[in-house]
Amino acid sequence: MDIVVIGGGACGLKAACRARRRNEEANITVVDASPYPSLGRCGLPYYIGGIVHTVDDLRKTLSGTVRDEDYFKKVKNIDVLTRTRAVKIDREKRIVKIVKPDGSEDELNYDYLVLATGARPIRLDIPNADADGVTTLFNPEDAEKILDMWDEGILEKAVIIGGGLIGMETAEALSNLDVEVTIVEIMDYILPALLDREMAMLVESYLREKGINVMTKSTVTEILTKDGRVSGVKINGTKEVPCDLVLMAVGVRPNVDLAVDCSLEVSKFGIKVDEYLRTSDERIFAGGDCVENKFLVTGDPIYTPMGSVANKHGRVIGDNITGGSSRFPGVLGTTIFKIFDLNVARTGLTEKRARELGYDVVTCLVPGPDRAHYYPHQKPIRIKLIADRKTGRILGAQIVGWGVVDKRIDVVVSAMHMNATVHDLANFDLAYAPPYAPAIDTLIHAANTVRNKMDGLLETISSFELKEKLDKGEDFVILDIRYEDEVRKFKRIEDSRVVHIPYNELRERYKELPMDKEIVIICQIGNRAYDVYRFLKSKGFNCKVLDGGLAFWFW
Amino acid sequence: MDIVVIGGGACGLKAACRARRRNEEANITVVDASPYPSLGRCGLPYYIGGIVHTVDDLRKTLSGTVRDEDYFKKVKNIDVLTRTRAVKIDREKRIVKIVKPDGSEDELNYDYLVLATGARPIRLDIPNADADGVTTLFNPEDAEKILDMWDEGILEKAVIIGGGLIGMETAEALSNLDVEVTIVEIMDYILPALLDREMAMLVESYLREKGINVMTKSTVTEILTKDGRVSGVKINGTKEVPCDLVLMAVGVRPNVDLAVDCSLEVSKFGIKVDEYLRTSDERIFAGGDCVENKFLVTGDPIYTPMGSVANKHGRVIGDNITGGSSRFPGVLGTTIFKIFDLNVARTGLTEKRARELGYDVVTCLVPGPDRAHYYPHQKPIRIKLIADRKTGRILGAQIVGWGVVDKRIDVVVSAMHMNATVHDLANFDLAYAPPYAPAIDTLIHAANTVRNKMDGLLETISSFELKEKLDKGEDFVILDIRYEDEVRKFKRIEDSRVVHIPYNELRERYKELPMDKEIVIICQIGNRAYDVYRFLKSKGFNCKVLDGGLAFWFW
Repeated sequence: MDIVVIGGGACGLKAACRARRRNEEANITVVDASPYPSLGRCGLPYYIGGIVHTVDDLRKTLSGTVRDEDYFKKVKNIDVLTRTRAVKIDREKRIVKIVKPDGSEDELNYDYLVLATGARPIRLDIPNADADGVTTLFNPEDAEKILDMWDEGILEKAVIIGGGLIGMETAEALSNLDVEVTIVEIMDYILPALLDREMAMLVESYLREKGINVMTKSTVTEILTKDGRVSGVKINGTKEVPCDLVLMAVGVRPNVDLAVDCSLEVSKFGIKVDEYLRTSDERIFAGGDCVENKFLVTGDPIYTPMGSVANKHGRVIGDNITGGSSRFPGVLGTTIFKIFDLNVARTGLTEKRARELGYDVVTCLVPGPDRAHYYPHQKPIRIKLIADRKTGRILGAQIVGWGVVDKRIDVVVSAMHMNATVHDLANFDLAYAPPYAPAIDTLIHAANTVRNKMDGLLETISSFELKEKLDKGEDFVILDIRYEDEVRKFKRIEDSRVVHIPYNELRERYKELPMDKEIVIICQIGNRAYDVYRFLKSKGFNCKVLDGGLAFWFW
Repeated sequence: MDIVVIGGGACGLKAACRARRRNEEANITVVDASPYPSLGRCGLPYYIGGIVHTVDDLRKTLSGTVRDEDYFKKVKNIDVLTRTRAVKIDREKRIVKIVKPDGSEDELNYDYLVLATGARPIRLDIPNADADGVTTLFNPEDAEKILDMWDEGILEKAVIIGGGLIGMETAEALSNLDVEVTIVEIMDYILPALLDREMAMLVESYLREKGINVMTKSTVTEILTKDGRVSGVKINGTKEVPCDLVLMAVGVRPNVDLAVDCSLEVSKFGIKVDEYLRTSDERIFAGGDCVENKFLVTGDPIYTPMGSVANKHGRVIGDNITGGSSRFPGVLGTTIFKIFDLNVARTGLTEKRARELGYDVVTCLVPGPDRAHYYPHQKPIRIKLIADRKTGRILGAQIVGWGVVDKRIDVVVSAMHMNATVHDLANFDLAYAPPYAPAIDTLIHAANTVRNKMDGLLETISSFELKEKLDKGEDFVILDIRYEDEVRKFKRIEDSRVVHIPYNELRERYKELPMDKEIVIICQIGNRAYDVYRFLKSKGFNCKVLDGGLAFWFW
């Protein structure tokens, strides 16, 4: 049996290796256009940032062997043809035409073909986009180009177009090289595909603190050059920002050329596959960054290029091209990244997207510690959960913080894969000991907060709504219930409508509050405000809690 | 409405606070025998170890207020009666008799009563168990006693009876004070209720490395004294171990005296409650460390005293005594602790217990990195999964390592709560980026390893079985496929039956291996051995893989 795999990335090689483990007799050939199969592309920003020292480190096995052609031949008896392009698929004859490194052509017969052609970085069509100093960060050559500029001392300022995932990772890498970084984002907040506005603003404020310039609602309309090299960018047709490097970090697109060329079904999300990862041709499977995935929350197609997903695809394909019957259920769009000391993670639907899709949602914003608050080195995290109001089914989550967020997002991911509700989540027997979690984990607390809202025990107002009320000059009261030292120490809202009655005096002094005005109760993270809300509500006051407390106050 | 809560620990106070949030009118009284309600007992070892500085730190809110009587009165309008003992419950009249700090008696009427009477440490009945220097670690007074001894310079050596959770946490605390620690465990390995033998041995070897003495199959038969003070212990009636402190860390028992006294249904696992946490008296609820829980894997009763569970109980009870209808589904027996730099976590059934219960189990031992192996500070973890062979349903997991284990155990916990199988788990869209996880998370790899075993793609032999074969002098071959530098650098099995053919030479040299002998393939962590196993199997060899590789070789 002949198996041909096009693409030597995570999916292609995993499929080949899995097939080999299940079938020793098959001839397995992997065709890869690059000179470096098995490259952990996701590590490239760390290579630029000096955290990973060589590109080969991104191609090694656990025991330190570079996974090159020789490795695959000797260890797996898999032929990996590098610098070799697959140029045509003849589905009828089951032949792949290839062009070898020396330019000669050849043909490979297949019984099963695997398309793992990956993605390509999107390059924007901006004037002077081909100037020296304009690049994407996709291949090791891109990384080398950036590092060469730095070595030559001609990289002092960089503009990153795109405030998404790659933009973030690259911003840190460049900043680690002492490069002054400006991120230009077209939408009105960064990470718009991943986070809701208030969560994105947590990241944005932090980026600014770390000296990164962030320009939202901004489009690079022209790249400015001097002697053929980048000298700056023009923003929104007017403002000029000088720079030496323009990094286009506006995402990737599925590489579907071959699939289109041989008339396989392809959508804008990639090559169409069924749950066995079979394309519209039963002899051809596809996986990794070139395929459309199923989004488990809605059942709709989605494009989620991700190394972890590609590896899972590879295993499923490896099974199915060797007589197995494995299924890939779909994805949740989980994403995580680290920017300096801040951890940012998300999964499922954002609130914005959920509302657009017509879901009746209930959400929470819950700041809290990542471990017992008396345990040293505990750090804050902020959790947003999005759930379906009627059923409590979890639709998505976003977690941002200096503390441990990956654990909590993975719990939500696991819950969502199994269609759990916030009621389920609230009683998960998560591991508790002071070095790892508070006795009531902040995630459990978040689930309970959603439940409180579902049960009508808590009404909140967002910080954006509160800001608007203030700006409009509305007649209402902000009740700050923090202790005096907190008010002194932390940020506060400076406005004559703010009334200050500390938490522990409120039951004695609540009559100082007006019955005829709306009261917005604020505290540091929202939990004391909830107590006061319940009390004032029972006394007939018209009140609400500032969602997430002053942790979400950005002004 | 009158609500009386007996016990000012996590469950009792949570129930009271939750009730208050739902009902402003109720009279809520909490009766607590101790002077320090709201104590985070789980933090006591960290107080001894100097990580937490005062006992009051274990009673504070997030914003730093000590949760004392005054706090509860002012902020929650809850009466907390400290140093007050509840001595009798009259269920017919719905009255609790109490004895106040001054010795006077009083009565509290209740519409609903909450029993949150907690646990008591088990004290062993050993000769001289009442000597000075014998203690448990349950109350702040116990901690003070130990610290006083240390301050006085009379604490140089300690014997901890019990190699369980409390024993571990205390061993680290004492070791941090430069006290020489000996742990005495009656079973043939430590942590027998929590871990299987090979996982426990990982912990045990590490403890020894850190200078802790571990004596298994050992019972303290007598406490030796000099002038009424501890001078040592006698082990198994013969061996003497000198020490200044004997710490009984053999667990706790539910405090059910009041419940028994008023004829509520009680089992050996604690007060019996239904899923609403209602006792056999519909006016009396119970939760926290005094109740029996439902073990979700088997549906059987279980005793799992745990602060996180107690808090969840409190919320459910708070709902149900104020007209709500909340349910507590049960627990998985999740446990986690840190000993020096090693993280140890478990949930569900051990393999041993699962087999005793008649499950047909399949397991895996998977060592791996906790993040991308090229990312700095990645650290190893070792995962054991236990699943039902037919369905793949996950029955339990144990994870030990220097890297991040809490995240992985919490994913398993979430999966198990939703009755997930290893097939589900293998495709969870867990958060991936190099600083957080390998592209194929070690947990996903573990789930896939179980699947491989279920599909008959992989047969393993445990290190105990291999050791036995070696010791018995059986005629077989151990095939070490590691590279030469690994064999030099890491531990190896010194035996004439070991054949060494490196992984990348095996396809050329496999004919050097005997067809008529059993071959046990070993590598560092087991994944390369799997490749070789598949290859040799296809050539007709009789072979198996050492489960978990040499990471689980203890000799």
